[in-house]
Amino acid sequence: MRYELFYWPSIQGRGEYVRLALEEAGADYADVARTERGMSAMMKMMEAPKGMAPFAPPFLKAGKLVIGQTANILFYLGSRHGLAPKAEAGRLWVHQLQLTVTDFVLEIHDTHHPLGPSLYYQDQKGPAKKRTGEFWKDRVPKYLGYFERVLDSNGGHYLTGRRLTYADLSLFQIVEGLRYAFPRRMKTFERDIPGLVDLHDRIAARPNIKTYLASRRRIAFNEDGIFRHYRELDV
Amino acid sequence: MRYELFYWPSIQGRGEYVRLALEEAGADYADVARTERGMSAMMKMMEAPKGMAPFAPPFLKAGKLVIGQTANILFYLGSRHGLAPKAEAGRLWVHQLQLTVTDFVLEIHDTHHPLGPSLYYQDQKGPAKKRTGEFWKDRVPKYLGYFERVLDSNGGHYLTGRRLTYADLSLFQIVEGLRYAFPRRMKTFERDIPGLVDLHDRIAARPNIKTYLASRRRIAFNEDGIFRHYRELDV
Repeated sequence: MRYELFYWPSIQGRGEYVRLALEEAGADYADVARTERGMSAMMKMMEAPKGMAPFAPPFLKAGKLVIGQTANILFYLGSRHGLAPKAEAGRLWVHQLQLTVTDFVLEIHDTHHPLGPSLYYQDQKGPAKKRTGEFWKDRVPKYLGYFERVLDSNGGHYLTGRRLTYADLSLFQIVEGLRYAFPRRMKTFERDIPGLVDLHDRIAARPNIKTYLASRRRIAFNEDGIFRHYRELDV
Repeated sequence: MRYELFYWPSIQGRGEYVRLALEEAGADYADVARTERGMSAMMKMMEAPKGMAPFAPPFLKAGKLVIGQTANILFYLGSRHGLAPKAEAGRLWVHQLQLTVTDFVLEIHDTHHPLGPSLYYQDQKGPAKKRTGEFWKDRVPKYLGYFERVLDSNGGHYLTGRRLTYADLSLFQIVEGLRYAFPRRMKTFERDIPGLVDLHDRIAARPNIKTYLASRRRIAFNEDGIFRHYRELDV
């Protein structure tokens, strides 16, 4: 089956967690909004008069199914492509970790948009500076400290044990993104999360991921996405 | 099976979405942290040296399983208690709606904590005012307009059709909470969401929910929870 992924064509954003899973799995997919007339196809699906229209991208078309919400898409893909256990307990545990990543991603976004997504960054620079300070003082240590501890207590190889899951791929993206957005802060902080840095490096070296990252399918980080580099926030 | 719910004992918070599902289902459960020595039991589980400790409350103990993240708990409970379809497509669709509620709940929380959860409200009153303004101008219409449309296009009875799901219960709580936190703003806005208001009223009248709301098991809204009433934000 050829999947159709619908996501904004010019950013990694929340779609990137899905792209990484599809790429690692070697799945056949179209990144629809990046194809000709793809954007209008995506907008049309969001306006669908029928009752199952998604709230926002990303969403994935898998045969007749249309699945929205990043973590929900990964939940669907995971056990089909060897990126999550098949048994219920394991599936729920990986999903739980992914939902914690989701919460963290929203807090990352709020560092540059503390007054909400409807105002420009330029209109909230002061509050962004304060929120970013709190983020690095309290939230990064809390979230990444938690994932470091989970990784360590499960043997240090992957978050849930000896097999890679989509939650590991998402943490790879978190480390990549924080390095892009906050290179100076992250450099210091990485001393506290040696396990996650090692996990990041091992994932970057996996054949499918390595190929993907070097391809044009991987959109570069930029200041329209979740991870944004604003020098004044990286002190 | 007697479930054990672990959540902060003095607020509705994110635990309330789980409580409403358990109550509607007539499930047997203990609200552990509200029992004697319950708080220390909860803290102990979060410090579990084993690799499956949850990041934060709420979490649910179901036999040997420990399930964290509100939407994940509801996903688990839903199909077991007739609060979600059993078939995969339906389960994913209800879960997708719930994850959109989750996003909205975080934005509700950010109205009074735009600079982050680690500072007091008193230290971020100005930004809270701005964020709340944006929230009511853009975000409430976007989220509740979406749910109103989903409800309407599926027949107006419940979000996904003719049967109640846990996502309907969560929207009941959203209406309750917005009425508590922003009585003046909400009064005006309710004209735009007649379907959701009607859904709220029908859920409030369901026997199990009615009994629950009148019981001491229902914690009153207060200014430590997600929905907080600050007069200066409700203009």
